[in-house]
Amino acid sequence: MTSSRLEAFSDGVFSIAATLLVLQLHVPTPAEGDFGRALLSQWPTYASYVVSFMTIGIIWINHHTLFSRIKEVDRPLLLLNLLLLLSVSTIPYPTALLGQSIGTGNGSHVAAAIYGGVMVTMSLSFTALWSRVGRATSPVGARLHPRRPMVRTFAGLLAYVLGTALAFVSAEASLLVYASVAVFYLFPPR
Amino acid sequence: MTSSRLEAFSDGVFSIAATLLVLQLHVPTPAEGDFGRALLSQWPTYASYVVSFMTIGIIWINHHTLFSRIKEVDRPLLLLNLLLLLSVSTIPYPTALLGQSIGTGNGSHVAAAIYGGVMVTMSLSFTALWSRVGRATSPVGARLHPRRPMVRTFAGLLAYVLGTALAFVSAEASLLVYASVAVFYLFPPR
Amino acid sequence: MTSSRLEAFSDGVFSIAATLLVLQLHVPTPAEGDFGRALLSQWPTYASYVVSFMTIGIIWINHHTLFSRIKEVDRPLLLLNLLLLLSVSTIPYPTALLGQSIGTGNGSHVAAAIYGGVMVTMSLSFTALWSRVGRATSPVGARLHPRRPMVRTFAGLLAYVLGTALAFVSAEASLLVYASVAVFYLFPPR
Amino acid sequence: MTSSRLEAFSDGVFSIAATLLVLQLHVPTPAEGDFGRALLSQWPTYASYVVSFMTIGIIWINHHTLFSRIKEVDRPLLLLNLLLLLSVSTIPYPTALLGQSIGTGNGSHVAAAIYGGVMVTMSLSFTALWSRVGRATSPVGARLHPRRPMVRTFAGLLAYVLGTALAFVSAEASLLVYASVAVFYLFPPR
Repeated sequence: MTSSRLEAFSDGVFSIAATLLVLQLHVPTPAEGDFGRALLSQWPTYASYVVSFMTIGIIWINHHTLFSRIKEVDRPLLLLNLLLLLSVSTIPYPTALLGQSIGTGNGSHVAAAIYGGVMVTMSLSFTALWSRVGRATSPVGARLHPRRPMVRTFAGLLAYVLGTALAFVSAEASLLVYASVAVFYLFPPR
Repeated sequence: MTSSRLEAFSDGVFSIAATLLVLQLHVPTPAEGDFGRALLSQWPTYASYVVSFMTIGIIWINHHTLFSRIKEVDRPLLLLNLLLLLSVSTIPYPTALLGQSIGTGNGSHVAAAIYGGVMVTMSLSFTALWSRVGRATSPVGARLHPRRPMVRTFAGLLAYVLGTALAFVSAEASLLVYASVAVFYLFPPR
Repeated sequence: MTSSRLEAFSDGVFSIAATLLVLQLHVPTPAEGDFGRALLSQWPTYASYVVSFMTIGIIWINHHTLFSRIKEVDRPLLLLNLLLLLSVSTIPYPTALLGQSIGTGNGSHVAAAIYGGVMVTMSLSFTALWSRVGRATSPVGARLHPRRPMVRTFAGLLAYVLGTALAFVSAEASLLVYASVAVFYLFPPR
Repeated sequence: MTSSRLEAFSDGVFSIAATLLVLQLHVPTPAEGDFGRALLSQWPTYASYVVSFMTIGIIWINHHTLFSRIKEVDRPLLLLNLLLLLSVSTIPYPTALLGQSIGTGNGSHVAAAIYGGVMVTMSLSFTALWSRVGRATSPVGARLHPRRPMVRTFAGLLAYVLGTALAFVSAEASLLVYASVAVFYLFPPR
């Protein structure tokens, strides 16, 4: 399979997952009293929405960087990519879990840990993809330089592990770590 | 990154956001009594649906106009575009807020202001994108003429600021302003 | 704008609208008693789901036939196409209205008429698109032959008008007409 | 129609259906008591989510294998493909049925049989597609070798028939069969 077709399918999953995030935002009903206050009390939902949207956007950019370096995709790359897509398309669920549980104060630690777990899975697939791309192109060598992006991907993985561990202390602290990862990746490599 | 790939991803977000709008339309339950009357009372939901759909459609057309002028996309353009996509993919939420709150008469002023706020963010990203495209291509100059589309984009921004201010007087008046912006952009430039 | 880009965006709307239809299918809760019987009683939902899916699939095929004949898209074509996309992306709503109201026996006449109204709007946009394509290419003439597809599109329009009128007699009869239109278009032209 | 355009539309449906699966995952409300336990009790929902996601991913890969062998698509192939897309876009519904009914213990046998029925329909369309591709290219013969993939597709069909029959004994056993089919197809042919 050519990498361009794999990218088209992956882009589809990325853009849909990012756009589905909005469905977790909730319109207050009249029974919830003051409309403005009801909206304000949903700030964790908005925060997790923005963090997840930016995260998926960054995954998309990095995914393009990775696959722009190869032309043909073999079976192992295809399956690793499928695992990455599975974790990305799952993101709307832990996003809803985290936003709503911080809001209600029920289960936010578990939710923050699950969010982190999905992100760790995503980072692991990404690291494995870079590692495989690096090996597959070792004869060519110099043109690929996958070491730098691998280090960057690995740094994200470590941050997500830290965020997951922090979940058991404070869900808000975890969310802050996840937000920081997104901000970190907004800056160009080097 | 080539602009064609960025456009493909953006088109995905635009078309999904536009199509997700339909999910806010609500099927009356038997408990709501007369079916036809229950549907008619939902007119604000339908009105905000059509306005948002046309708005996203126009954003898509203008987005294409902008990116057809450049071939390569650098990091700042990429991030500005991500901000634009974030605001566009959020549109279904203020659309639901506005439609439902005008219907129930609870919180419509806040909802109309939030709708305007999302549109102002969207317009600001768009203006910044045009400004950046204009600067990046200043050596070539004459071929780009980004002044005219920038003025048009800026006019939309001003209208959205007006609509947001009007929200505190009347949510229906705001919605009318937002609808007028869409109608204005339906006419070709010049 | 090139027609290929317009087709890509339209395909996005078509495929999303078709796939969103599944969200109206409802999982019975334990409170609804016998699971199998609760599913069977939802047959109108399944029927309207299949009819709408096939209808959108056929719109996609015909849309491709139309735009494969032109290369450049002008503003009027762009706006007519936007109107077509608006009606297609609305289809999940009357589909849910029709399926659920036939099931509950409340408001099915109104729902069948609304379904027909959306389809009439869609057919009108399609007829206008063919008419515009035919006029735009009149100098070339013989290569386009838009008369035959226009007749076919117009036949569909008439059938949808008939279905809408029938709605006030029987919603089930209307649904049968809408299904017949889909079956009719499954057969190749001529 | 060229096969590349048909693939683009099909990829759209595949990626949307796969990404919509996440919407069936449910955020526990405070009324459901312990958050972590409420999540754990939803394991059938997660299991059916992963199985369906991987299944759609594999359908995508196999669909590409099939259509990469032909360049032009005739009407019968178009309609068979539409039937395949209908069954794939339906998958989120039996996935939700199966996950939720195993969880509540109400109707899981019926749900597992419906899941199998949708998969049998999908496999039948796929087998018919391969058969048609094989016949259409019989003059060329040696280049296509559709026998091997047809046997693989047929093996999947048989497994889905077995899973459907098992549904009346145990829904969990059925789900295990459906998961095994996905794992089987993860391995490359031969």
